[in-house]
Amino acid sequence: MSTKYVYIFANGESEGTGKMKDLLGGKGAGLAEMTSAGLPVPPGFTVTTEACTAYSASGEKFPEGMWDQVLAAMARIEEVTGKKLGGGENPLLVSVRSGAKFSMPGMMDTVLNLGLNDETREALARLTGNERFSYDAYRRFIQLFGKIVLGIDSEKFEHKFDEYKKKLGVKEDTHVDAATLALLIGDYKAIVRRETGADFPTDPYRQLELAIRAVFASWNGRRARDYRRVHKISDALGTGVNIMMMAFGNLGEDSGTGVAFTRDVATGERVIYGEYLQNAQGEDVVAGIRTPKKISQLQQDMPEVYDQFIKVADRLEKHYADVQDLEFTIEKGKLYMLQTRNAKRTGKAAVRIAVEMVDEGLIDKATAVSRVEPAQLDQLLHPMIDPKAETDLLATGLPASPGAAYGQVVFDPDTAEEMGKAGEKVILVRTETSPEDFHGMVLAQAILTSRGGMTSHAAVVARGMGKCCVAGAGDVVVDYPNQQFTVGDRVIRKGEWITLDGSTGRIMFGQVGLIQPEISGHFKRLMEWVDEIRTIGVRANADTPKDATVARGFGAEGIGLCRTEHMFFEESRIDSVRQMILSSTEYKTIEKQLATAQADLAKASKDKQAELKKHVAKLEKKFARPASFYKGALASLLELQRGDFVGIFRAMNGFPVTIRTLDPPLHEFLPHAEKDMKELSGKIGMPFKELKARVEQLHEFNPMLGHRGCRLGIVFPEITEMQVRAILEAAVQVKGEGVVVKPEIMIPLVGNVTELKAQEEVVRRVAAEVFAEKGEAVEYLVGTMIELPRAAVTADRIAEVAEFFSFGTNDLTQTTMGLSRDDSGRFLPFYVENKILPDDPFQTLDQEGVGELVRIGINKGRSTRSSLKIGICGEHGGDPASVIFCHQVGMNYVSCSPYRVPIALLAAAHAALADRTGSAATTTA
Amino acid sequence: MSTKYVYIFANGESEGTGKMKDLLGGKGAGLAEMTSAGLPVPPGFTVTTEACTAYSASGEKFPEGMWDQVLAAMARIEEVTGKKLGGGENPLLVSVRSGAKFSMPGMMDTVLNLGLNDETREALARLTGNERFSYDAYRRFIQLFGKIVLGIDSEKFEHKFDEYKKKLGVKEDTHVDAATLALLIGDYKAIVRRETGADFPTDPYRQLELAIRAVFASWNGRRARDYRRVHKISDALGTGVNIMMMAFGNLGEDSGTGVAFTRDVATGERVIYGEYLQNAQGEDVVAGIRTPKKISQLQQDMPEVYDQFIKVADRLEKHYADVQDLEFTIEKGKLYMLQTRNAKRTGKAAVRIAVEMVDEGLIDKATAVSRVEPAQLDQLLHPMIDPKAETDLLATGLPASPGAAYGQVVFDPDTAEEMGKAGEKVILVRTETSPEDFHGMVLAQAILTSRGGMTSHAAVVARGMGKCCVAGAGDVVVDYPNQQFTVGDRVIRKGEWITLDGSTGRIMFGQVGLIQPEISGHFKRLMEWVDEIRTIGVRANADTPKDATVARGFGAEGIGLCRTEHMFFEESRIDSVRQMILSSTEYKTIEKQLATAQADLAKASKDKQAELKKHVAKLEKKFARPASFYKGALASLLELQRGDFVGIFRAMNGFPVTIRTLDPPLHEFLPHAEKDMKELSGKIGMPFKELKARVEQLHEFNPMLGHRGCRLGIVFPEITEMQVRAILEAAVQVKGEGVVVKPEIMIPLVGNVTELKAQEEVVRRVAAEVFAEKGEAVEYLVGTMIELPRAAVTADRIAEVAEFFSFGTNDLTQTTMGLSRDDSGRFLPFYVENKILPDDPFQTLDQEGVGELVRIGINKGRSTRSSLKIGICGEHGGDPASVIFCHQVGMNYVSCSPYRVPIALLAAAHAALADRTGSAATTTA
Repeated sequence: MSTKYVYIFANGESEGTGKMKDLLGGKGAGLAEMTSAGLPVPPGFTVTTEACTAYSASGEKFPEGMWDQVLAAMARIEEVTGKKLGGGENPLLVSVRSGAKFSMPGMMDTVLNLGLNDETREALARLTGNERFSYDAYRRFIQLFGKIVLGIDSEKFEHKFDEYKKKLGVKEDTHVDAATLALLIGDYKAIVRRETGADFPTDPYRQLELAIRAVFASWNGRRARDYRRVHKISDALGTGVNIMMMAFGNLGEDSGTGVAFTRDVATGERVIYGEYLQNAQGEDVVAGIRTPKKISQLQQDMPEVYDQFIKVADRLEKHYADVQDLEFTIEKGKLYMLQTRNAKRTGKAAVRIAVEMVDEGLIDKATAVSRVEPAQLDQLLHPMIDPKAETDLLATGLPASPGAAYGQVVFDPDTAEEMGKAGEKVILVRTETSPEDFHGMVLAQAILTSRGGMTSHAAVVARGMGKCCVAGAGDVVVDYPNQQFTVGDRVIRKGEWITLDGSTGRIMFGQVGLIQPEISGHFKRLMEWVDEIRTIGVRANADTPKDATVARGFGAEGIGLCRTEHMFFEESRIDSVRQMILSSTEYKTIEKQLATAQADLAKASKDKQAELKKHVAKLEKKFARPASFYKGALASLLELQRGDFVGIFRAMNGFPVTIRTLDPPLHEFLPHAEKDMKELSGKIGMPFKELKARVEQLHEFNPMLGHRGCRLGIVFPEITEMQVRAILEAAVQVKGEGVVVKPEIMIPLVGNVTELKAQEEVVRRVAAEVFAEKGEAVEYLVGTMIELPRAAVTADRIAEVAEFFSFGTNDLTQTTMGLSRDDSGRFLPFYVENKILPDDPFQTLDQEGVGELVRIGINKGRSTRSSLKIGICGEHGGDPASVIFCHQVGMNYVSCSPYRVPIALLAAAHAALADRTGSAATTTA
Repeated sequence: MSTKYVYIFANGESEGTGKMKDLLGGKGAGLAEMTSAGLPVPPGFTVTTEACTAYSASGEKFPEGMWDQVLAAMARIEEVTGKKLGGGENPLLVSVRSGAKFSMPGMMDTVLNLGLNDETREALARLTGNERFSYDAYRRFIQLFGKIVLGIDSEKFEHKFDEYKKKLGVKEDTHVDAATLALLIGDYKAIVRRETGADFPTDPYRQLELAIRAVFASWNGRRARDYRRVHKISDALGTGVNIMMMAFGNLGEDSGTGVAFTRDVATGERVIYGEYLQNAQGEDVVAGIRTPKKISQLQQDMPEVYDQFIKVADRLEKHYADVQDLEFTIEKGKLYMLQTRNAKRTGKAAVRIAVEMVDEGLIDKATAVSRVEPAQLDQLLHPMIDPKAETDLLATGLPASPGAAYGQVVFDPDTAEEMGKAGEKVILVRTETSPEDFHGMVLAQAILTSRGGMTSHAAVVARGMGKCCVAGAGDVVVDYPNQQFTVGDRVIRKGEWITLDGSTGRIMFGQVGLIQPEISGHFKRLMEWVDEIRTIGVRANADTPKDATVARGFGAEGIGLCRTEHMFFEESRIDSVRQMILSSTEYKTIEKQLATAQADLAKASKDKQAELKKHVAKLEKKFARPASFYKGALASLLELQRGDFVGIFRAMNGFPVTIRTLDPPLHEFLPHAEKDMKELSGKIGMPFKELKARVEQLHEFNPMLGHRGCRLGIVFPEITEMQVRAILEAAVQVKGEGVVVKPEIMIPLVGNVTELKAQEEVVRRVAAEVFAEKGEAVEYLVGTMIELPRAAVTADRIAEVAEFFSFGTNDLTQTTMGLSRDDSGRFLPFYVENKILPDDPFQTLDQEGVGELVRIGINKGRSTRSSLKIGICGEHGGDPASVIFCHQVGMNYVSCSPYRVPIALLAAAHAALADRTGSAATTTA
């Protein structure tokens, strides 16, 4: 028996079902389901997606048996309707529409009125008693078929039509009479002949064959392929073709056509929402020539049809237990349903609808949770540009930190601070930011830089504060002396307003309308159900007591990454940090010399002692300045950091706080402009020349792979000592206040267990000292980041020392792929566009490559320490697909930006639901 | 039964054997072996290394039973010698010496004359009839025991001795009479009392116990630990203690002591080689107070003893079948052998001795091959500083390229070229070099830079040319305007001579004597045997026809890495390269705009065509300059590269040549100094401002992880096309000349199979074009570097496309460990010094981490393509330990610098020999 390629739906019976979306496409499955449910659907049939893939694979041949099945199905439709394709007094006209599993713009949409030729037009005129209608339908058919199936530029037809309208002195199509339309049809046929070298096909079965071929071909059209690439839809799915009896919405004022949603898909409100046109066919709505009416108007125009439609809509929504997106046509007072499908909706609507449907008993809580895409929540968590607002786009940069904001342009942090404190909204514009700009960044609405990537100072700091940032906007030329920036020939001066969209990178002139985030009761209820379902923990990356409080508010169950260096950037302490750094090397060098000299002195014979004593004294003198600089800076940082930790521990009462010791290369903290160096030189009392030389000394060719992470703490153990002391003194203090404190000390950039061991020894020693001094101990853990491939492949060794792992997938991605995030702009977009890479690996974890190292790391780590606690703290921790991966590989928690905690929580719940059903969790939004 | 801790050797019988080096230490094993062989060894016994480790582990307690065994052994020695420790008329004196498995400076060496006290001194005087001798022996004993066992500064004794000598008005110890020595002994005892708070121990068994404890303790002394760390010797081995009857070399002119080698360990010549002192004890030779005589003098002095010694030496060499390092003492005409061990030797001697011993029938070829350490060959392949030469060290930099050279200092490449061409020896001194300096580097003897690391331009280019280079000598301050450089307060002017040692980084003033490499017949013969034994292939990294010829001369079986970019640095072509780079981005941008515009035009309606045509024309005009720049540069590079490949293919007739497509970030080729940019601007006709902007645009934060490798060829496929065309046109050309050509085209920095696939398509397409044009095809392979962790963990996918893998372990080490080689100087030395890392991972492959990824890559790669050819082309390919690793993991070949090919060949043979015996191949040199 040959394969079944055609599924009929007619007369309340369907060969297919609503579940057969893969085979019939979304539209075909909907039609089958509606027909079976007894709803008024014009009879018809669906050619399967399998037929499409077979057609493509065989070099555009219909698969064997398909055409015969089409003919048989058509005979059945003729039987049901009593009409006949291409003949008789009651000619059957059909619509032909594509319908893939996912709806896709760019594919062939619809050919209406197929089956018309000179004879059937006459029959139609006789049947409807409406000559003009028949000509109009024929005219429309040639034009649509000509464009869509034969590939003739639509303008060529429009142009001819316009000539007649000009001659007649009319503007509207409907004012063109039947006789003129008859002439126009002759001209249309001539156009077809000229453009294709052949007559317009008059045989309706030839028309049908060509239309089916056109639908199949459109699956591989450029726009469709582009769309699938962007939306990660497989090229192998294929499209179905739906052929159904025409219902005419253009047979008079008792006819019409429309689209509607069963609820408001913008707000989620439970109210029917849509529009319709009287006396019109589907493409009139789309074309926008006439303004459609609100669906509520139908109640006045045709109350009975409206009531019927409302009942049908309600039934469909209940049947699918989801908001439906409906198409319908009314032919002389008779309602036909042409399509039903689950409606797309905004994040806000998705949440409200899901929650209300639970209240209505339509769905259960798990289904409600599964109905909201994690990424959709982002809209609820940041201000966003009003999609309806007009915008004047100046340029586009990197979407460095999401959200949107407007403000007056300022070019230096002091002005930003001053105006910000005065309650004015400002946007700080810099070529790039440095720690000196921090105080201005805090008070700016948003930050714009012309240089720097997704991990530049501006981007990292802004994300940490949940503040909008557009970075690396190369077209923006900042002109500090004139206090303005230029984009091409446009000049934006200080004080003028701009609006930034940190989610897309857009820079717009003026104040663009924003939509503020609103955490409504629905959202809160949904998140409660999320918490009941998910199994993997969600923590936040937070560096300040304020961030920690925000994170708790969003539901974070602890801090997965507290970056101590971010605390260093604050204006009040950056000078101490710099003082520490600038004296560190000298301190170490002389310390070592001094130790050697003292040892020599201790074992020296008497006659040599005098000389050695002099040497030691000389070194001690030389040591005095760096020692006081270094130790002094460390001492003041100890005070400051202890205070930070106290605040964070209080905010996270009862929850674990993972604190990472100093990570970035030291030169990141230093000023690089001569002016700033001079200023610092004065402040800390180090000669400018010496200071400049030290800054240059610390320059690195590849800072990502340089002297950073635990390499700092190993060479400068005093820094680790200071940090550990600050953490544990703070912990003891808050424990005294009754706070439940769970510090986890995390050593970064470990590649070898020996590195971790060396730092662990420092931690344990200082801990013992602090606990002895305070007469009070707290429980704490020591663990490490896994962010180097070497750490992953030697995780069994590392877990012998580490009590927990946190996968730093930002750096792990950079090292595994050999890809600097800051430098990837020159080729990564090209890579994604050309499918060399499926995604930006810094947004969505590369599961095949980086993920393989994560799996290796987890397996090896647990092989030597089964109780190992494992999490992730790269930015992937807030990416839904990556959260699902983390759940699947058995991590204990993910950690992400406070502003992405709800997204991660929801993704975690999706992953748990997928476990329940045994299906693979995916995100399609 | 308690453990046996003591092994006696006496009277021709030994409890131990020569094979028990682990247990008895090298010295103890040698003494046991010599005794069993009937050689004249003073009777004695060895306390085992196990006793030492037990002693350390138990908090310095002798293990149970050890002391009893010592007493029993001593009784046996007393029995054999008829002497008695500490008593009677024939007192037994013994020497106590440490002896670990590997000989180690820094451990306690020797205590002689143990057993002396006031009574035994008297007995000794009576026995020898030599009062002065007995006092001298006693004096020496107190001094040595005081220093070594009691830890008293030796100067304190010397000082006292000097006082007496001054009083007596004599200079030599030997001129101090017995009476004075008796007084001195009294003073020595007083010193001991003062320094230790106790009397000098008079009980010989107490002396013995303390001496054994001192030996055990010296195993954990700081110097010994330091030495083991540097030489990678395990701390767990422990040392043995050898106690044997004293033989007195200082009993008159018929006595003496000496050391000798059975062959010349500097040259390998078969001639006994050593020195001796009449009437002396061992420490006199070491102390250097008297100048020893050549061993041949012994023939005149004591012909019978000499003959006996020669026979013993010969017997020992035959017995061990290796050159022996001997210690002996002659007591009143009687020869005693105190030590025999395999002698250390220079590389040159190692080769000659190994080959000649095969000729003599002493060893077989495999043994000969195993006797030469691969690293030793380095001495034979480069000029080296004469170790006997006096040097005036100015400073030390990085040992960037091995070898040594002297020349007159010059500061610019033009002068270097000019003087070099005139036959003068010059050393080019620069802050750092750039491609513009290449012509001068070629003609310089060596290169010195004050900045830049092991992978700086100077270092890489110098290594490629096998030319000596010292890089990054931070103490050298180059002063171009005054044509001089300074180091501290020393000034070296243009034209003055300096000598560089690229193997150690030393910079010396003046012309220091060099030893030129000599590839003698012995060396050639050894390498023939190496070739018979080894199984893994050895290729060379070579970028020019000259290098290829050198590589073939050294035995390379093909080229494993030909870096096409190195060809770009030549002065004649660098401008074309720069022109290509500076126009590439603009070319790409406008090309894309133009393609879009042309497509729009093609499908535009008539009324829009005019406007679009104008747009296209405008773009075409704008495209003209970058197109001619870019295409023009590519065309001229095609010519040049084709010529390079022709030369390389000819040199490698019959052998494969792996050519890597362009790899480094483009900005590496660009000038960065304003002056150079201005010059280039004039040369290629690009406005300076534009040129500067483009150079800045190409700047990267982490160039290692930036737009390089295949990412270049993917974004700019024209570059790959040009290179592939040059390779294959050259291949077709030389095939026509009868050359057997085997090109292997290698795509760098692949992380994802999609990248390789994209580049492979370009290669296959261009190949088909070239072969069609020329009417001739050549066989070629397409493969990839595995130098990213992601490539290793997805090697199964990559091998679906790649026909070969070449592990680029330089970059793989950098990415796996997250370690920039150029920036590692600030912490890597600290890491190695403090045992955080066992070795510099850029010198010796990190087998645990990077090696694990290599294993994963090989296993996965062969899982999908069993015929996959696998090699390595990082600098590890020339490191013996790494070559052995490559053999063990099943690579087909290693590839290294031409000048390291013999080293790799020998290491490969060692690996194959280890397979035969089932033991682990190691390198200890």
